[in-house]
Amino acid sequence: MDTATTALLTDHYELTMLEAALRSGAAHRRSVFEVFARRLPDGRRYGVTAGTGRLLDAIENFRFDDETLTFLDEAGVVGRATLDWLAGYRFTGNVWGYAEGECWFPGSPLVVVEGSFAEAVVLETLILSILNHDAAVAAAASRMTSAAAGRPCIEMGSRRTHEEAAVAAARAAYISGFASTSNLRAGQRYGIPTRGTSAHAFTLLHDDEREAFAAQVAALGADTTLLVDTYDVATAVRTAVEVAGHELGAVRLDSGDLLLLAHRVRAQLDELGAAKTRIVVTSDLDEYAIASLRAAPVDAYGVGTQLVTGSGHPTASLVYKLVARAMSDEPDAPLVPVAKKSPGKPSHGGRKSAVRRYDADGVAEAEVLRPFRADAEPVPGERELLVPLVLGGKIVGREPLSAARARHERSREELPLSATQLSRGEPVLPTIYE
Amino acid sequence: MDTATTALLTDHYELTMLEAALRSGAAHRRSVFEVFARRLPDGRRYGVTAGTGRLLDAIENFRFDDETLTFLDEAGVVGRATLDWLAGYRFTGNVWGYAEGECWFPGSPLVVVEGSFAEAVVLETLILSILNHDAAVAAAASRMTSAAAGRPCIEMGSRRTHEEAAVAAARAAYISGFASTSNLRAGQRYGIPTRGTSAHAFTLLHDDEREAFAAQVAALGADTTLLVDTYDVATAVRTAVEVAGHELGAVRLDSGDLLLLAHRVRAQLDELGAAKTRIVVTSDLDEYAIASLRAAPVDAYGVGTQLVTGSGHPTASLVYKLVARAMSDEPDAPLVPVAKKSPGKPSHGGRKSAVRRYDADGVAEAEVLRPFRADAEPVPGERELLVPLVLGGKIVGREPLSAARARHERSREELPLSATQLSRGEPVLPTIYE
Repeated sequence: MDTATTALLTDHYELTMLEAALRSGAAHRRSVFEVFARRLPDGRRYGVTAGTGRLLDAIENFRFDDETLTFLDEAGVVGRATLDWLAGYRFTGNVWGYAEGECWFPGSPLVVVEGSFAEAVVLETLILSILNHDAAVAAAASRMTSAAAGRPCIEMGSRRTHEEAAVAAARAAYISGFASTSNLRAGQRYGIPTRGTSAHAFTLLHDDEREAFAAQVAALGADTTLLVDTYDVATAVRTAVEVAGHELGAVRLDSGDLLLLAHRVRAQLDELGAAKTRIVVTSDLDEYAIASLRAAPVDAYGVGTQLVTGSGHPTASLVYKLVARAMSDEPDAPLVPVAKKSPGKPSHGGRKSAVRRYDADGVAEAEVLRPFRADAEPVPGERELLVPLVLGGKIVGREPLSAARARHERSREELPLSATQLSRGEPVLPTIYE
Repeated sequence: MDTATTALLTDHYELTMLEAALRSGAAHRRSVFEVFARRLPDGRRYGVTAGTGRLLDAIENFRFDDETLTFLDEAGVVGRATLDWLAGYRFTGNVWGYAEGECWFPGSPLVVVEGSFAEAVVLETLILSILNHDAAVAAAASRMTSAAAGRPCIEMGSRRTHEEAAVAAARAAYISGFASTSNLRAGQRYGIPTRGTSAHAFTLLHDDEREAFAAQVAALGADTTLLVDTYDVATAVRTAVEVAGHELGAVRLDSGDLLLLAHRVRAQLDELGAAKTRIVVTSDLDEYAIASLRAAPVDAYGVGTQLVTGSGHPTASLVYKLVARAMSDEPDAPLVPVAKKSPGKPSHGGRKSAVRRYDADGVAEAEVLRPFRADAEPVPGERELLVPLVLGGKIVGREPLSAARARHERSREELPLSATQLSRGEPVLPTIYE
């Protein structure tokens, strides 16, 4: 039924627009589309670019094979001439974008696609799906790692989101500083460290808690994490140390008043001589809960639901808009800016360049968008944000995931201090259209 | 890198639990896991079962092939004995569940998995990912189709969610009564009708609106839907009817005060003699916006973001809990109920049967859960809710998607009238543990 091609992860109207534009001839006009968000989610201070690496793979696999064409034909989506055009589809244009991990603000052109209208319009849905999802998770993840202030965060939200979205979410979280994930496919596909030990079911399976702990330690070693809240926490902690000894790696708390429990369990562990045993907490954590545990003796946070659902904002509101197109059907016709005029949705036509402007101390102070000029010179105190991702149809923007992760850390550090306040506020940088 | 197997769409800890249980011998204890939600999302009246069909495919493809085993080995997730066990993995147990489309309530055992602990525990993450996502979308979709009161709803949220989640979302929406989707893969994979015509980019591509409309009508026929809010709506409607004639299929409004605009555009269309031309509205609609347009001359609703993000509740909070397991390692050991004792998370141990109880008028009045008895007789005025999905490892629960769609309509109709009130309230049926 299915194929590996990404070509049908697309809205029907991309292909009917293509059909109509092929017929009118306008399909071949050189066009520029920009991906941007009109606003950040309410109260958020910055966005995070994520999904770029996945997007490059998806563009490469955007091919209309026989099975795909047969479906489009039989379903009557488009006619013969369009099917023939699609059979030869290969994106030959250019894509620039904010490098993965980079912070962004309202209006930032996260991705710029230049090509014929035909070849660029059909990528809309796929580009937005990938970036809207991954950026939403990465933005939430960044607030969480920032709130965790150096303590490791473990991504464990797979069960709360679509099974493939889970893999992408683990990737996005890693970019924003998560230390590891529970998702094994993310480990296989992206090389992200995976972690996991046991659930309540494992304790309940055995005749008592001691037997369960002994079974786990026998299999996984004393340096494992024992889950201590199936019955009574204090009893479980005592049993855990008796079974595993002072080398017990960690105990996990998954319910109750974590602030109170963490202090009690820490004191109990120390008293039992297990001073090196860590405390891992999990239990519907979000960035606020993580922050509230800052003064508690917690060594790691496991985060699930709130991470994979973007902590209240499961999508990033990115849109894909035609901002310029050739003035006519002539091959070398110059580009003209275009923009929808409807009320309530401001648009800025024309291809833009994007730079981040810094103050004398190297702190970012503005996102500056200006009309693109090929011959623009770099300006001191500004950093160019758009990097080439695809040139002449060739993917040039691939990089290791670790590069995106390192970039996000740098990009967040450059922002004004209020960027990492959790309280609701305005975007931490103003967007200036010059 | 990847394979078609679903085996790694799983949390790391499922496999470490397996490893430890294989070593302790407890892995072979017969076990019963139930999938249920402790509560509905705040204010919601009912849940909708969705994802079952996808789940059956996923269970069938849950296989540890060489590539998968090599990854697990090299990453050090589990040791040799466990790898050997996984190489032969095939689920041989039983699965019962609420039939797809059925409404559910807090505690309803949506899925019951019976098998050895080993074979059942490893399915946890995958089962929850699929059901949590699909049920969240289906629940939102059901409120929307109910608010639309018979007018067709078109799913067009692909761009706002992960690219594969989008396909599953289209499927879930269709179960809950959506008429069609924009997602072409959902059309190919599930046979859901797909719809789409054009976006603002198509108008902006052309030299003016008239040229764009003419190009679209030339390619797609007069019975197409023209998007009339790129510049000025009244001008666009006039141009649309001039270009397409009285046979114009529909106009689409994607911004502005839809209530006001729909009335104005309807009047204008009628005045222009295009009395049969329909009005389609799209623009961040949710169930409340749909309901508020009930008195407006709107013919169809296109719904995107709010649908695929569960209208505020992007995940269904379903959990997978061990509720019973064999008393000992003996092959015929009887089952004993088990449940976690932590505060704040009530659990009801033991395998349960689930029936819906009706009043004399055939209106549902309660969700009744009672300890499972193989010899239980049907009770008049009650309907058994658990149907067999997998028996002895064999998939027996496959059905056409249309069956799930028809079932949801019936299941919703049987509920008390207040089920489809949009205002926040309690679950419309009480859950009674007998």
